[in-house]
Amino acid sequence: MRIDILTLFPDMVRQALGESIIGRGQEFGLLQIEAHNIRDYTLDKHRRTDDYPYGGGMGMVMQCDPLYQCWQAVCGGEKVHTILMSPQGAPFCQAKARELLGRGRFLLVCGHYEGVDQRFIDECVDEEISLGDFVLTGGEIAAMAITDAVCRMVPGVLADETSFTEESHFSGVLEYPQYTRPEVWHGRPVPPVLLSGHHKNIQAWRRLQSLLRTRERRPDLFSQLTLSPEDEKLLAQFDGAQ
Amino acid sequence: MRIDILTLFPDMVRQALGESIIGRGQEFGLLQIEAHNIRDYTLDKHRRTDDYPYGGGMGMVMQCDPLYQCWQAVCGGEKVHTILMSPQGAPFCQAKARELLGRGRFLLVCGHYEGVDQRFIDECVDEEISLGDFVLTGGEIAAMAITDAVCRMVPGVLADETSFTEESHFSGVLEYPQYTRPEVWHGRPVPPVLLSGHHKNIQAWRRLQSLLRTRERRPDLFSQLTLSPEDEKLLAQFDGAQ
Repeated sequence: MRIDILTLFPDMVRQALGESIIGRGQEFGLLQIEAHNIRDYTLDKHRRTDDYPYGGGMGMVMQCDPLYQCWQAVCGGEKVHTILMSPQGAPFCQAKARELLGRGRFLLVCGHYEGVDQRFIDECVDEEISLGDFVLTGGEIAAMAITDAVCRMVPGVLADETSFTEESHFSGVLEYPQYTRPEVWHGRPVPPVLLSGHHKNIQAWRRLQSLLRTRERRPDLFSQLTLSPEDEKLLAQFDGAQ
Repeated sequence: MRIDILTLFPDMVRQALGESIIGRGQEFGLLQIEAHNIRDYTLDKHRRTDDYPYGGGMGMVMQCDPLYQCWQAVCGGEKVHTILMSPQGAPFCQAKARELLGRGRFLLVCGHYEGVDQRFIDECVDEEISLGDFVLTGGEIAAMAITDAVCRMVPGVLADETSFTEESHFSGVLEYPQYTRPEVWHGRPVPPVLLSGHHKNIQAWRRLQSLLRTRERRPDLFSQLTLSPEDEKLLAQFDGAQ
């Protein structure tokens, strides 16, 4: 997997993606993540990357040319799938992460200031992605999130590949609660079923917890679930006991 | 505004939040953002923070005690509003950012591995927040996003306070396209209205662009809008001309 990130703050991106699991994936040669400084591609002596918006208004707009020069150099004549991090984009989700995983290579452009000149977007950007319905100072943190979400699915990056398939947003339900040593902490015991060694009961308890959490916290996800007959039975038993 | 972040990767957080607008806000004394290393609060010689999950399963679970010791030290006897970054949480949004802004101080706990022992959550966590419906390797990038989204609204952090009120997700519509110098780039001219100096026309054009973008890209947001009579007129004129 190769991801190029065009940014005014390459150190921010490099440090954040150089640690932990994604950092190890790079050391192992499974991931190539390159942060490129847009400012290195400015043509004037002030290394300016932004200017006032036509038509007036607050803030500054990122100019086409430094972005374009940087983009061209990174693409190297190839057409690399180009994504602009933008509050105007489609909200990011796990299905999009899987789609990007399938591409093998893509490029993320981090906007800043009030925005990016629309003509660069029209000419070079294939899609705009938003991290969610909130506003950030720039695209860097959003680019990190997308990079992290995609790279952790690259085979070999997580210590155990099966671990990511079990998690929330893969199966459409929230994860069950987790417990580890000690058995009793601050007077709070681990649920006895987890210490029983009875795998079927543990599985049923965990599934029920996942379903209950999803129903309570995320009715939007719950309503999209296709419940199995076993799921229906677990919920009916629980609701009947209440 | 004071934000404490409990993490296994404090350098990642410090670097990312030390640059750009949020970094400057800290230099100016408007923001106090502290990253605390959970590992510094382990009690055993191996500085262990995780263990196997009770009941079996993949991955490791973060133990209560190092988290709790760290949390207690940072709170210093006060009850600081405590948020766990978790895929099981409520999805983050601009309204939540505004609510957190009003708190003046809060604490973010970054989960890692397969999750966090539920008993720490039950005892110390006031709410769980998810960055969105996707899975990250840890809570650090989510904590950065929340910190950035909240801190940029602290008065004085953005160069011009009015600039954030105009943006997407504040007014419920997406932003209009932006243009800056040069007037023609790669044969693409700036829309003439923006060069007209006619403020009313510029405002109407921008409003129409915002409405059209929102209608096309985010029908979910568009359906929640209360359109003014002027909005209705702009859209009717546009649709009539198509």
